[in-house]
Amino acid sequence: MRLKNIKGAASVIEASKYIIQNPEHFRGHFQSLFHNSHPIHLEIGMGKGNFIINMAKKYPEINFIGIEMYDSVMIRPVQKLENESLPNLKLIKADATNITEIFSREIDVIYLNFSDPWPKKRHEHRRLTSERFLERYDKIFKGEQVIIQKTDNRKLFEYSLQSLTNHGYQIAELSLDLHADDIPNVQTEYEERFAQNGDVIYMVKVIK
Amino acid sequence: MRLKNIKGAASVIEASKYIIQNPEHFRGHFQSLFHNSHPIHLEIGMGKGNFIINMAKKYPEINFIGIEMYDSVMIRPVQKLENESLPNLKLIKADATNITEIFSREIDVIYLNFSDPWPKKRHEHRRLTSERFLERYDKIFKGEQVIIQKTDNRKLFEYSLQSLTNHGYQIAELSLDLHADDIPNVQTEYEERFAQNGDVIYMVKVIK
Repeated sequence: MRLKNIKGAASVIEASKYIIQNPEHFRGHFQSLFHNSHPIHLEIGMGKGNFIINMAKKYPEINFIGIEMYDSVMIRPVQKLENESLPNLKLIKADATNITEIFSREIDVIYLNFSDPWPKKRHEHRRLTSERFLERYDKIFKGEQVIIQKTDNRKLFEYSLQSLTNHGYQIAELSLDLHADDIPNVQTEYEERFAQNGDVIYMVKVIK
Repeated sequence: MRLKNIKGAASVIEASKYIIQNPEHFRGHFQSLFHNSHPIHLEIGMGKGNFIINMAKKYPEINFIGIEMYDSVMIRPVQKLENESLPNLKLIKADATNITEIFSREIDVIYLNFSDPWPKKRHEHRRLTSERFLERYDKIFKGEQVIIQKTDNRKLFEYSLQSLTNHGYQIAELSLDLHADDIPNVQTEYEERFAQNGDVIYMVKVIK
């Protein structure tokens, strides 16, 4: 995602009731933030937030947490949520590489939507489906591990299928043309724009 | 593949030096037919034969066996081979469901090229990557098991990736647009014709 420096973003974000300040203080106890025992679904790299906001509206019996690294991006969902009341949604401003310092055995599902493909081999470890990240996820999942990935990037998707299955995940659902299939799908901003070009969206749900 | 009844096909096929008569007599001893200890690669559903004939020419240090069920199809490779001398190629007219009565722990690689997708759920067991077929293959592989599949059929490919990885195979190579990638590739007749339409060819190489 292209980043513009948005003036005052940091202070607007900080003031939002959706943002969890000092998330590492809740490590292992995120459930307590929601005052219920519903499963917790995590989106890593939530971008402008349409996906996770619409998921939270659609599935009130699931708790959602969205992570985003950049102020200039996070400002968008924060603004969208200003007049919304969604007790099952929380946002965290953090770098995904620090994820094991934030969570501990409490996540049920991870969403990876249109992640940065990091095409260069020397950046492989930055891909959110690299072995290094999958090992991090192993530490934050509670029980059965579910990852759902969507992307339009063919090379990232080929890499991910290989990486996920080699890490012990089984393919539960797979589409090599999601928008041509009859599968329930909440779209991201990027996806909506992209799909208008008629290009292919890939989706996989894996479980271990 | 559409089948026309070709008059006299059966007797022409029977007379070919490439055809193995009564293949079940060689069960467990196919190596002896080639008078060497080179690996044996098997194509199931070889169709008109371009793939396996060109592979046999390109890789003389590998023994190839092609299986095809229909006389009206098998006649094509038989005719193409009339004036060829390829000691590393043999053909078998057989139904793939009988494959364990023909081979026993002697195959190194299986090729599945543009197999019938059998789209109806009740025909799933006929797909060459169904659990039932994968169990048959387990009995004819010698050591490390390698399957290489190519298809233009999205639904068959989605099914196959799921079926193969759930059967314990790991993805060694994957392309969701083979002809756009720089991967060595011997084409089938079907593939050549198909690729001219600019449609996508999928390829996966799995190992267990």
